[in-house]
Parts: sequence; structure tokens; C-alpha cells
Amino acid sequence: MDQHPRHQPRQAHRFERRGAAVPALLCAAALAGLLVAAPVSGAPATPLAAGMQRIVEAALGDTYAYERLGELCDVVGPRLAGSPAMARAVAWAAATMERDGFDAVWTEPVALSCWMRGEERAEVTGPAAWSLPLIGLGNSVSTPPEGLEAEVLAVRDWDELEARGDEAAGRIVLFDPPWEGYGKTVQYRTRGASAAAGHGAVACLIRSVTDYSLGTLHTGMMSYDDSLPRIPAAAITVEDAGRLHRLCQRGLTPRVHLVMREHRQDDVTSHNVIGEIRGRENPDEIVLLGGHLDSWDVGTGAHDDGAGCIITMAAAQLLAHLDLRPRRTLRVVLYESEEFGGFGGRAYAEAHAGELVRHVAALESDSGAFPPNGFSVRADSLVTAYLRELAAPLAEIGAGEVESGWAGVDIGPSVEQGVPGLGLRTRNDGYFHYHHSPADTFDKIDPEALARDVAAVAALIWAVAEDPVSLRDRAPVHP
Amino acid sequence: MDQHPRHQPRQAHRFERRGAAVPALLCAAALAGLLVAAPVSGAPATPLAAGMQRIVEAALGDTYAYERLGELCDVVGPRLAGSPAMARAVAWAAATMERDGFDAVWTEPVALSCWMRGEERAEVTGPAAWSLPLIGLGNSVSTPPEGLEAEVLAVRDWDELEARGDEAAGRIVLFDPPWEGYGKTVQYRTRGASAAAGHGAVACLIRSVTDYSLGTLHTGMMSYDDSLPRIPAAAITVEDAGRLHRLCQRGLTPRVHLVMREHRQDDVTSHNVIGEIRGRENPDEIVLLGGHLDSWDVGTGAHDDGAGCIITMAAAQLLAHLDLRPRRTLRVVLYESEEFGGFGGRAYAEAHAGELVRHVAALESDSGAFPPNGFSVRADSLVTAYLRELAAPLAEIGAGEVESGWAGVDIGPSVEQGVPGLGLRTRNDGYFHYHHSPADTFDKIDPEALARDVAAVAALIWAVAEDPVSLRDRAPVHP
Repeated sequence: MDQHPRHQPRQAHRFERRGAAVPALLCAAALAGLLVAAPVSGAPATPLAAGMQRIVEAALGDTYAYERLGELCDVVGPRLAGSPAMARAVAWAAATMERDGFDAVWTEPVALSCWMRGEERAEVTGPAAWSLPLIGLGNSVSTPPEGLEAEVLAVRDWDELEARGDEAAGRIVLFDPPWEGYGKTVQYRTRGASAAAGHGAVACLIRSVTDYSLGTLHTGMMSYDDSLPRIPAAAITVEDAGRLHRLCQRGLTPRVHLVMREHRQDDVTSHNVIGEIRGRENPDEIVLLGGHLDSWDVGTGAHDDGAGCIITMAAAQLLAHLDLRPRRTLRVVLYESEEFGGFGGRAYAEAHAGELVRHVAALESDSGAFPPNGFSVRADSLVTAYLRELAAPLAEIGAGEVESGWAGVDIGPSVEQGVPGLGLRTRNDGYFHYHHSPADTFDKIDPEALARDVAAVAALIWAVAEDPVSLRDRAPVHP
Repeated sequence: MDQHPRHQPRQAHRFERRGAAVPALLCAAALAGLLVAAPVSGAPATPLAAGMQRIVEAALGDTYAYERLGELCDVVGPRLAGSPAMARAVAWAAATMERDGFDAVWTEPVALSCWMRGEERAEVTGPAAWSLPLIGLGNSVSTPPEGLEAEVLAVRDWDELEARGDEAAGRIVLFDPPWEGYGKTVQYRTRGASAAAGHGAVACLIRSVTDYSLGTLHTGMMSYDDSLPRIPAAAITVEDAGRLHRLCQRGLTPRVHLVMREHRQDDVTSHNVIGEIRGRENPDEIVLLGGHLDSWDVGTGAHDDGAGCIITMAAAQLLAHLDLRPRRTLRVVLYESEEFGGFGGRAYAEAHAGELVRHVAALESDSGAFPPNGFSVRADSLVTAYLRELAAPLAEIGAGEVESGWAGVDIGPSVEQGVPGLGLRTRNDGYFHYHHSPADTFDKIDPEALARDVAAVAALIWAVAEDPVSLRDRAPVHP
């Protein structure tokens, strides 16, 4: 559905003057802000801190987020970008925000090229034979309809592939790297197929990217180097990757037969879902918050990122419910296609290019519904310092840490246009047990941790939206 | 293969005299034994303790067990009772014991009625639709060829089924009990189908019996009450059981379509595998040790019970290798069909009924390759007390605890005939993460823990086989 917003954004008036401001004045304003918000241990020192405390208390006693996340996960289910399931999720989210007291709800189109999973099956045909569960990686091409069969060349890492590259031709390369943290290990998922194809491999299997497996398949996005042949790419379990690798090390080269019937659909239109709580005094200044509504097609996208959608919806809804409508407008955006590289986030930034200058901040929640740590900020260092002071009262619920860092895929295009970016950080040590797997389901959600996430986001986003001085005036402007 | 033993058991001579012994004398012998074996902290106090210490040191530095368990899991693979895979495992085990220095190796027939998994698939057809991974329970009947479809009645436990029994007719009953330890929770797997059938259900689904799930299916044995209709029974993941249960609680009764094409084969002959290290002085007195060679058909039966087979094979092999051939014969038995109720253990006890009186002890290892705790003993309390003293030096490797309790399925029929039974106990807190699932694989084996298991078993079993006084003379005989 494409709905028109109930109110049209007005022209910016305040920020348009900002370009003329003297940086020294803004520095003074920033310093004043630091002083105003500086917390006194154990007691709310400022009106903002007092409001935050009230919000935190209300959020911790509220079950709205847990109930809504249950609906999204259990009733709506998984929602692969661009799929009919995602369209149902869009309709659910819009209807839910309408029902739950948002002032305006609408959807905005996102143009996509979609990848859909088809039949997937594999077996080890010898010398030991077994059925090999696998899960295609997002963006992978298909095998021929009858599948393909080849010997497996198992390697531990890039170095071993390079050293044994002349053995890869005509084979299925299996990457079986040890877990070395997500950022490093995921490289085999994203780049492994092209690395293998560069040595003549006919397909690529990877050990599922996780730090703990109970026979669990983890999917995720991959991409191709345009200069190399595109070969099918899938993940297998840690258990099967290890067994195949050890058989190779014994000299018992296994053969695998692999069928993948993925397909692609171009020119699909899907949607971001947007809901607003209109600002009390400066409604055309916008504080953005959200998560991504799309998920992988296994599990129900509970932590990734049903949680982020619901945490931000619940934060805005709570403020309306408490009649704590802030000075500026809160705009919740549930993005399409984060998992396929951020189509929704780009579409938002393009559609709202003219008003990004009036976006005071953009927050993304995409670290699961684990207990909150604080926030990761991508902004001018003075803004970061100010947010550190503003968030200090959240130390009470363990969420007071503010550090410079990555803020989120979906808000990235807006942040690159100068909008200060905040990412909710969580204590998500177990996240990669579930991530992109059938285990990312509602039973893994701790209602207390979820309530604390809502508390942290609601309190901080309210303070940003309520603060008499705009966050963007907390740092000098580079003309 | 059925091989004749290289040596035939001789007639008992020593134990035949035992019936005439005066209980008081035996009590004295038992007391003497306690004194002889009483350890002095930190130092081997007796020749037995000194031998045990040498064995422990050798075992801890030995990689034999880890290498052989890798072969069994990775090369041979899973081995469902009575299957061709089990026949390959029998051949492998016999050839391995022959090669590894056992004095005699043979197989003995075990008559079975076999259950084999066929096509299994299910989907939730509405109101939310998704593909439902499932795994049939051992012994389950099939659905009709086209499958069956029915509404789900989800219940938490027996009480809820009783309270809502009139809703079960024509439905698929789903048991979604919380984990309350294996012994209690597994009852839903073994008895759930008949309980549901008693209320007119057409099929039974259970939440996989585990304390932690990452989308993992756990199978296992079930049985039918002969007075009730036999309905198909399968396990689904904790995640799907929870989602279905919560949908029911919302009043959104899900429907499930279920296809199970299991089959049964009667009159199958499979085998126990037996290997002996012949006793130095009293070769016709037998110390039995072993595990079960059959496993479930998912995973590779690494902890359950490849580990037990290899721990006991390795223990006997180590003693031969160290030239510590004990006074009595060590007989390693790798049993068939523990998972289907102990056909192999019964076959052994029947085939060897005449010589069970010369079985000095029977040890079973079926608690995985986790670090050893000690031993669970099912025997006369004086025997148990004596074993507690004998095992005391194993406290050095954490394996010195001896308690009365369950000793093992496979040795049960022999133990019931008076053979003192010992079960290796392990610190297996994580066992039910893997148990009967695709996650029970070689990567879950800690080589150090495995070596400690071998050390504990080899040292204690050597002491029992070497002890000048037979373990069976450590307790009064009831004529």
C-alpha cells in the first residue's frame, strides 16, 4: 500500500539559517548543552534527565513491545525482501502503527531486484555417503536444473586456497574457516564464491558463519566479482563442513551433488513503512528512528531485525501514550531490504533528500533484543560528546555507554548526508548462534531485555527530540 | 560377519567353588581388599594403585581413541540399528580390533525387528504457512502415503491433555513441555503418541527433547500402548513447537500436513562385535566392558555412543600395548540396538548365560566423551564400597567418585544375572544439546576429555581384572 502522509512536511525554516551561524557560537551552545545535561549521580539533574527517568520507568513496566514482536514473528513470520511475505509484513506494520496511535502512517516505494530461494538439496555421494543439508546464500545463482556434481576441495582460509589454487579447477571449493569474529569470518560468505571461481571452481560451499552450531544452517548475502564466472554458493553446517574437511585431510576426497534452483525477479516494488508522532513545537524537524522490516526466510527474524522495528515503534508509541510528545517530530521508518544491501535506506534518503537537512538525528536498532549497552554514534565528535552526556542517565539500566562507531546500514545514506547517526548497542554475545538461521525466533527474546532496549531508545530519542537546542547545533557546521 | 573366537571359553573352575564359601570369610576378604587398596593421598599405596597410575599416565598421552573415534564418526558415519550402515560399522569395528592387537575378535548374531526412516516432510498450511522440519521418532508408524492433515491441539503437559482431551479427536496433538531434565521430559517422546491416541488424536508431534535448541531436531525411541491405535509420532524443533503453541494460544489454530513413510523390517540379523585381551592367569574369568555401536541416523553418533565403543576398545588396547595384560580376560563388547531397547545386550546375556557366573564385572560407557566423574555401580553394596576404594586414585583426574546407580542398558541383562555393573559417569551437562541430533558429531569431541575417559576406564578395569581377589568375592553370596 502507498498511503499519503496525513500531514505534509513543511519547508524547513530553522536549519536554513544555520549556514550563517558562527561556529564559535555553536561551540558555546554545545558547551552549554553539556552543562545543562550533565547528570548528577543518582538524581535527574535537568528537565531532560527527569523526563528520561520517567520514560525509562514506564518502558520497563510495559509489555507492548513483547506483544507486538510476538505478532510479527509468530503470526506474520519471516519476510524476505521483496517477497509476498514482506508485503504482508508491510501491511501489518502500517495497520499496527495506525491502530497504536501514530499521527500519520504511510508507505514509500522501494524498487528492488529480488532474489528468491528455490529447491535446494545436496548429498555427499562418496566415499562416505550422506544427505547434506544446505542453504543457498542470498544472491547466489542456480546450478543447472539437474544439479552439478564434483569433488570437494576443502580449505581452511584464503591462504590455503591460494596455495592450492591449481587443485580447484572443476571442483567444489569448501571454505571451513575457524570463527574469528563475524566481521572477519563473514568475508568467506560474501567473497568466497568469486575467490573460488577465480581458480576455476564450479561451486562454493562455506561453513555456516557462527560461533556455535547445533546442526544449524546460517544464510546471508554474498556478492560476485563481475570479472569472474558466477558460481552457486551455499552454506552447510559447521558439523558437515568439519566432516568433509577431515575426510579431505584423510585423502578420502568426497564428492558432492548439489541442486539449487534460486531465481531472481527484477523490477519489483516493495515498501518502507513510516509512522510519525508529530512534534509539539517544531514538527518539521525530524528525529528518525527505525529498524529493517525485511528478514531472512528462515526463522522469523526475531532479533534480526523484528526487534529493531518493534523497539523503535514501541519507543515512539510509548511517548505518545505518556503524552510526552516532544518538541520535534519522531519518524519511525521500517526499512525494506537491509539484508540485500540497503535498498530501503537508500530509497528513503533519496526520497527525502530535500529535508535531510531538517533531520536532527537518525537512530537505527539492528543489534537484536539483547540487553542494551548504549549507543554507537557516527557524527561530529562534539555531537558524540554531547550524546555521551545526554545518555549518561541510562547507565542506570546499563545503557549509558556512547562511543564513536558504525550506526547502521539503513540510516547510512542519510548519515552520509550529514544527519547524526546513532545505533543501539546491545550485549549480544550470543547473537551469532541465531543470526540468519532457523533459530532466530521469538522464543529467543527476553522480554526484560527487550523492555530495556525500548527504555533506552525511547528515553534518548525523546531527549534528542525535546532538547531546546537541536543536536545539529551541538557541533560547528562546515559551510 | 560371524567369526569364531580364536579361543573358546574354558569351563569355569574357580567360581564354581564359590557357592560353598562361608559368607564370613568372604566378608573378611572384602575387608582385606579395602585395606589393600586404600590409597595414601598423593602416592600409590598398593601394587594396584601403582599400576593404575602408570595406566593413567599412558592414557593421557595417547591419541589412539581420538583417532579411532574420528574414523568411526567421519568415515563410517551414523549406524542405525539393523541398517546396512550398521553392518559396515560392525565390519569396521571387527577389523579395527583385529588390527589393533586384540587376541580374539568375533561377532555374535542379534535378531532384530528394524525400523527405518523414510520420506518425512510437513508444512503448516495455515493460518500462517511455513515448511515444518520434523524427524520421525523411532518405532513410529507411517502416515497414509498421501499424508494426513489436521488442526493442531498444542498442550504443555499431561495435565493439559487430560483437561482438554475432548478437543483432541481428529487433531494432531503437539506436546510442548518445558525442559525438566531428560528423565522427566523424555516421557512425552516415549509415551506421548499413545496418550494422544487415547483421546482420538490422529498424530502426535513433540517438542524436541533438549535443553537448548538452535533449530535442532532430536529423535529417539517411542513405544505404543497395545490397547490403543498407533498414530504417527515425530519431533519438531523447540522453535517451531513454541510458535505453533503460541499461535494456538492466540486462537489461530494452525493446520499441519504431515507425510511420514517409515518402514519396518522383521527378521533382520545384525551383530554384536566382541574382542578379547586374554587373561594372564585366569583367562576364563571375564571382565566385560563396552558401549553400543548402533546410533541414530542423524549426526554421526559421536558422543552416543561412538565414544563408549572407542573408550572401551582403547582401554583394552592400551593395556595390551603396555604389556599390562591382567590376570583375567578383558572382553570388549560393542552392542547392537541399544537405541531400540537393548537387543544386543539381551542377545549377549542369552548367548553367554552359562558363563555369566564367571563374569567378574561388566562396565558400560554410554555417557558421552565428556570429562569423567567416576562410576555408577549397580551391585551389592559391599562391592560398591570396595570399588569406591579401588577407584580412589582416579580422583587425580577427577574420576574418583563411585556411587550406587544405573550402570547401562546393554549390560543390564547381565547385571540382572548377578554380574556387578559399572557405568562410566561423565560431567555431561551439555549432552542434551547434541543427543540424538545432527549435532552429535566428531567436532563435539574434546580429545583431552576423551583421553581422561580412557584413562579412568583402563585403570579401573585393569585393577578389577588384576586384583588377586575376584570382585565377586568382595560380597557375600546368597546361595
